[in-house]
Amino acid sequence: MNISDRSFVSRGEIAYSENKNEIKTISGGYLVCEDGICRGAYAELPEQYAMLPIYNYGKQLIVPGMTDLHTHAPQYSFRGIGMDAELLEWLNTYTFPEESKYADIEYARKAYNYFAEDLRRSFTTRAVVFGTIHNEATIELMNMLENTGVVTYVGKVNMDRNGGENLQEQSAEASIKATEDWLMAIDGRYENTMPILTPRFVPSCSDELLNLIGKLADSRNLRIQSHLSENKSEIAWVRELVPNSTSYANAYELFGNMGTAERPTIMAHCVYSDEKEMEILKKHGAYIAHCADSNMNLTSGIAPVRKFIDAGINVGLGTDVAAGSSMNMLKTILITLQASKMYYRLVDTDVKQLTFEEVFFIATEGGGRYFGKVGAFKEGYEFDAVIIDDGKMFSTRDMSIRERIERMCYNDADVVIMDKFVKGRQIYGKL
Amino acid sequence: MNISDRSFVSRGEIAYSENKNEIKTISGGYLVCEDGICRGAYAELPEQYAMLPIYNYGKQLIVPGMTDLHTHAPQYSFRGIGMDAELLEWLNTYTFPEESKYADIEYARKAYNYFAEDLRRSFTTRAVVFGTIHNEATIELMNMLENTGVVTYVGKVNMDRNGGENLQEQSAEASIKATEDWLMAIDGRYENTMPILTPRFVPSCSDELLNLIGKLADSRNLRIQSHLSENKSEIAWVRELVPNSTSYANAYELFGNMGTAERPTIMAHCVYSDEKEMEILKKHGAYIAHCADSNMNLTSGIAPVRKFIDAGINVGLGTDVAAGSSMNMLKTILITLQASKMYYRLVDTDVKQLTFEEVFFIATEGGGRYFGKVGAFKEGYEFDAVIIDDGKMFSTRDMSIRERIERMCYNDADVVIMDKFVKGRQIYGKL
Repeated sequence: MNISDRSFVSRGEIAYSENKNEIKTISGGYLVCEDGICRGAYAELPEQYAMLPIYNYGKQLIVPGMTDLHTHAPQYSFRGIGMDAELLEWLNTYTFPEESKYADIEYARKAYNYFAEDLRRSFTTRAVVFGTIHNEATIELMNMLENTGVVTYVGKVNMDRNGGENLQEQSAEASIKATEDWLMAIDGRYENTMPILTPRFVPSCSDELLNLIGKLADSRNLRIQSHLSENKSEIAWVRELVPNSTSYANAYELFGNMGTAERPTIMAHCVYSDEKEMEILKKHGAYIAHCADSNMNLTSGIAPVRKFIDAGINVGLGTDVAAGSSMNMLKTILITLQASKMYYRLVDTDVKQLTFEEVFFIATEGGGRYFGKVGAFKEGYEFDAVIIDDGKMFSTRDMSIRERIERMCYNDADVVIMDKFVKGRQIYGKL
Repeated sequence: MNISDRSFVSRGEIAYSENKNEIKTISGGYLVCEDGICRGAYAELPEQYAMLPIYNYGKQLIVPGMTDLHTHAPQYSFRGIGMDAELLEWLNTYTFPEESKYADIEYARKAYNYFAEDLRRSFTTRAVVFGTIHNEATIELMNMLENTGVVTYVGKVNMDRNGGENLQEQSAEASIKATEDWLMAIDGRYENTMPILTPRFVPSCSDELLNLIGKLADSRNLRIQSHLSENKSEIAWVRELVPNSTSYANAYELFGNMGTAERPTIMAHCVYSDEKEMEILKKHGAYIAHCADSNMNLTSGIAPVRKFIDAGINVGLGTDVAAGSSMNMLKTILITLQASKMYYRLVDTDVKQLTFEEVFFIATEGGGRYFGKVGAFKEGYEFDAVIIDDGKMFSTRDMSIRERIERMCYNDADVVIMDKFVKGRQIYGKL
C-alpha cells in the first residue's frame, strides 16, 4: 500500500511480545498509530480512533520491526564467503583488506548503496552499524542510511594498531582528531542517524586510544560499541595486550568504555563471558549483541544467552554481517534458537534452551529497548511495523498467528515483506 | 528457457565437485548433455558436440542438482512449527496426529500437491521420501512425484506399535499384506518413482514386522530406509524394546534391515552412532542421511560426519521435513557446516570441521551416488542440473564462481532458480 500519513489504523493478523514469555496475537486486530506513536493493538477499534484512516491487510501478518544490534556495513560486499576461517585469520584475509578499500569514496558509495537498499527492504527497522576508519565513507554511509528511514547508530571505526599499513590510524591522537572531525561534520545533519563511538576491539586500539574514547564519550554524551570475548585466541591476545586487566570486559572498563545505563555500551558476542564479565556488563547496563550466525560461521562457539537473561543483562540480536552471512533477522532468530538448543545439549544441560517466545522477544523488544520504547505494539511505543504476506506458504493446516510467526522464522521461503514502517512512516512498500 | 530436447549444450558459469576436496569451476564453460547423459564440462566445446543446440546462460551458475536423502512428505503441512519440543514429544504431539489425517485421500491429495510442487521448484533433483502407513495416499504421492520429474524413492510406512489408535497397523502380517498390496498396485507404473520399504523406526515396528520387512526386501530386491540413533531417549527405549541387540544399528541388523552394497539401506540421523554402529553401517554399505537442521531443531545433537567420512561410510544430506523446517538444500548445507563447526568447537577438537568443499560434495555427489552416477558433471553421469541467477546479490567485489557457490549456500537471499533438469529433461523453468 501507499500510506503517507503518520496517523492511521492498520488492520490484520497482529503479533508482538507482551513480555519475554508471551506472544500476544489478535486476529483481524486494529493497530493504532498516532503521529508515529503506537496507541495499542485492539480486537475492536476504540471509538476515539474511529476518525483515523484504516488500512486493511486482511490475512497478512503485522509484527514489530526488528532491531539488529550489530552489523558491519563495509563487510556486506563479501557476505557469505571465506567462511572456513576462524576470527583472526578471517579478519586479516578478508575483512581488513576489504575495509581498506573504503578510503576510496567512489568504491564506498557503490558498496554502501547495496547495503542500505537491502537494509531498507529487510525486517530490520533499527540497527547499530560499524563503518570503517574513513570519515568520508562513513558520512556517505550515514547519508544513505538516513535516506532509508531505518533508525540507526553508525560508527566511524577507531583503530591505531594491528590493522596493517592500510587499515590503521597513525596514532591515538590522530584517531581521536578524526573522530572529532567526523562528529563535527555530521552535527545536526540527521533525524534518524546517530553517531556512536566505535573502538573496533582491544587488539585494534592502544590503551591510550581506548582511554581517549572513554573521555570523549563522557564529554560528548555519546554511546560506545565494540566486540567482547568472541574467540579464544582473541581473548588470549587481549590478556597479553592489557596485562593489568582481570578480564576482557575489565579492559574496556579500565579505559572507561563500558558506558552507563543512560548511555549503554553494546558489546558484540560475549561467547566466553563468564560470571565476572557478566557482572561488569550488568553493572554498567550494557547490551550484549548476540550474534549466533557469526559465532557458528567462524567456529567461535555459542554464547550462553539464557545465563545473560537470568542475570538481568540486556540482550539483543546482531546479524554481524559479514561473519554473519545475511542481514535477515528471521534467519538470525532461527540460528539463535538452534545455537541455544546445542548449548543445552552439548555444553550444559543446566542451561535450558531458549523458547521461541524468548527469542522473538529478544529480536524485537529486547534489542529495541536500546532505542527507547521500541519493538512492541504497546501504548506509547514508537510505531515500527512490518507487514508480511506468507500466503504462498501453502498448508492444509489452519495455522494460528502464533504458529505462522514461528513458521516464518524457521522457514522464510515465500515470506514476503509487503510494507514497512518506522516511527509511523512508511519506508518500504512492495506494491 | 524452454528446452524440449534431451541432447544439448548449456553454457554458463559451471561448478561441480571433482572430488570431495575440490570444486571444479569453468567460467563460460560448455556442459554437454546427450540423451540425458552428461558428456562432460569443457572450457572449449569439443568438435563432436558442435551440432548440438547451445543454450547460453551467460553469467548464471550451473550446478548439479542436489539429493535429499531423507524427508517426510506428510509432515510438510506443519513445517516450521512445534520446534520447542524434542523427538518423542514432537512425534506424539504434532507428527502422528497429522499423519493419521492421510487416511483421508482428499486431504492427502491437497497436502501432497503442495509438497510436490515445492519440491519441483527446489534445488533437489533426487529425493528419498517417507509417506504414511496409508496405501492410497502413498500412491497419490507417488503419482504426483512422478509428474514433477524429480527422481524419488517413496515409502509406504510400516508401523504396528506405539502409533496410537489412529496411526498403527493391526499386526505385523497386516502391515506386510498392505505393503504387498501397495507394491502390486504400483508395479510398472512409474519411470522415476521407486518404492522403498520403510519401517518407521524400531519403536514403531515389532520384531516380527522388522523380520518380515527384511525378508520382503530380500525376496523382492527392495531397498529399506529408516531412522537410527537420533535422540537419547529414543535410543534408551530401543534398548528396552530389543534387549538382545548390542546396539540400535544391531537391532536392524538382527532383523535383516541393514541391506547390502547393492541395495543400500538409508539410516537417517546417526547422531549418537559410535564405532560399533559405524562398523555395522560400513559393513552393509549403508547410507547415512545426515539431517543437521532437524537434529538442531529437535535438540537431538550433532552427528560426527567427519568420523563417518573418515571411516568410509556413505553420507548424504537430508532436509528431514518437518523436523527440518524447509526443503531448501542450500539452507541444509549452511546448517550442516555450522553443525560441524560446533561439533569441533564444543564436543571434540580432534574432529575437524567439514570444509565447504566437503559439504557441497556431500549435498551433490555424496547423496547422489545412492541413485547411481548422479551429482556431478562428469562423463557418463545422469544429467541433473540447476541453473541459478544470483545477479541480484549485488557486490562491488568480483566474485569467483567458487565464491558465488559458497555465498549462495551461506546466503540464499536473491538466489533464484531459473531452470532445472533431471536426466536431461527440463522439469522447471522460471521464465
